[in-house]
Amino acid sequence: MTKPAYVAVDWGTSSFRLWLIGSDGSVLAERRSGEGMTTAAKVGFASVLAGHRQAVSAPETLPVIVCGMAGARQGWVEAGYLDVPAALSAIPAAAVRVPDAVSDIRILPGLAQRDPARPDVIRGEETQLLGALDALSDGNGLVCMPGTHSKWVHIRDGAVTRFSTFMTGELFDAIGKHTILSHSIQDAGPFDGESEAFRQAVTECIRNPGAASNLLFTARSGVLLHGLSATDAKARISGILIGLEIAGALDGAEPGASVTLVASGALGALYESALEAAGAAPTIVDADAAVRSGLAVAARALWDL
Amino acid sequence: MTKPAYVAVDWGTSSFRLWLIGSDGSVLAERRSGEGMTTAAKVGFASVLAGHRQAVSAPETLPVIVCGMAGARQGWVEAGYLDVPAALSAIPAAAVRVPDAVSDIRILPGLAQRDPARPDVIRGEETQLLGALDALSDGNGLVCMPGTHSKWVHIRDGAVTRFSTFMTGELFDAIGKHTILSHSIQDAGPFDGESEAFRQAVTECIRNPGAASNLLFTARSGVLLHGLSATDAKARISGILIGLEIAGALDGAEPGASVTLVASGALGALYESALEAAGAAPTIVDADAAVRSGLAVAARALWDL
Repeated sequence: MTKPAYVAVDWGTSSFRLWLIGSDGSVLAERRSGEGMTTAAKVGFASVLAGHRQAVSAPETLPVIVCGMAGARQGWVEAGYLDVPAALSAIPAAAVRVPDAVSDIRILPGLAQRDPARPDVIRGEETQLLGALDALSDGNGLVCMPGTHSKWVHIRDGAVTRFSTFMTGELFDAIGKHTILSHSIQDAGPFDGESEAFRQAVTECIRNPGAASNLLFTARSGVLLHGLSATDAKARISGILIGLEIAGALDGAEPGASVTLVASGALGALYESALEAAGAAPTIVDADAAVRSGLAVAARALWDL
Repeated sequence: MTKPAYVAVDWGTSSFRLWLIGSDGSVLAERRSGEGMTTAAKVGFASVLAGHRQAVSAPETLPVIVCGMAGARQGWVEAGYLDVPAALSAIPAAAVRVPDAVSDIRILPGLAQRDPARPDVIRGEETQLLGALDALSDGNGLVCMPGTHSKWVHIRDGAVTRFSTFMTGELFDAIGKHTILSHSIQDAGPFDGESEAFRQAVTECIRNPGAASNLLFTARSGVLLHGLSATDAKARISGILIGLEIAGALDGAEPGASVTLVASGALGALYESALEAAGAAPTIVDADAAVRSGLAVAARALWDL
């Protein structure tokens, strides 16, 4: 039987994921919970981690590699930022050790872009990038990482040269819940990247991004005047916001630019459809696999595994 | 002493304003309250109006002219829409009479743009436009009416040819309260159109509207990395959203385009500054005066006053 070698943790704002990894790199056990930074800051990071380690019977002495918001100022131990341009291979050595812990627990740093015109920060996605690096030809490319705060990252020779955060997921949530559009979508059913209303909204907003907050209103007026369905109204709002993001992220890029899409599940499928509608040719990398792979690269760099 | 001639009411979603107008057109009394459509739909439109009529001692038999959301489907009596292109002078005759009322009460209709590519509706602002028409040279121009839902209206020979709603005010509210940016602005003080952070954000977003949801995030990363103040962060968010609106509304317009700004108070000053930063030359019309003036035009057209 494979012996456990280390514990890998992706500790986000609202989610916690832990894997027990064997000496051959295989996943021996997995845990997922809602004990993200927000919860853990109240109940204690050490106790949340200890509970999940016990649940998978991980030996107490096993080293632990952590990425994400556990390293934020409001997190467990602040892990700071590497300033871009930053070689992804420099990330593991910049990990911060949790003091007075039972075993060797290291939290990986984020990335900071201090350009006064476009200040930006990443925390967690740098580890996905480290894991997705093999998927980039010659360590070069443009990477799209959709989510609550989507990240678009330019990588050259294995180093992050610049990146941009788009608040797409959070805007979708705030607009759908806290504006007049909430009435138009309250009976909406599920939709996906095949939705014509979604794809049309993506292309409309890419063609005319300045009209974004007007296009959003047409999700309401389309219901009032043309019987647009609640599901199509919701797909339209999503398409407008994702289209706005793609318009900004691909501004200045070649038509048919190659984009590596690091994503999973329904959101990944939605972005794949939107990028195709935008004329980009996405290569897909699974986000869950990427973060595990990035944590593995860091663990191997830090410890003799 | 001037005799009372009619009652004028601007009945919005969340606000109610009533003026008692004399036979010489002067304002004899005024009432303002929060009993907009939302409240009145619960307690009764007739009783809200009766209370304010009594408070200004308006004779029961006086006619009443009403504009705004009282004419919406969820309002008092549905007053429908005139389809664009629509002559502003045609609005009074399309008013709907409230049945079984003590006096002659008429509610003015809204405007609808049924273009399937850009469906849109206006309710209330059409009356401001009717009142502001004298300020437009030869009845032609582009009118900006900022607010929760800003309206940009193209007028030709006294007729509305097309218009666009931008959700700027509501987006500002939802983003400032219900996203991660709320933390960055919670200690913000007041700001105005003189704010350099505001004006810079306006021009940045006009130059690159596709970056809007990335620029919004810089209000947070600017605080994290460069000590941006909460007040400047809030001014920046406002400038990005107003800049996005102006970028969309002036798309295709001549540089230095003349814009008639129908607005009042602090919001009017903010838009005046933003339009100047965008290189437009705004002419200001007071929104309060415009709606009273529009209601007066309608009252004179309907009744022998």
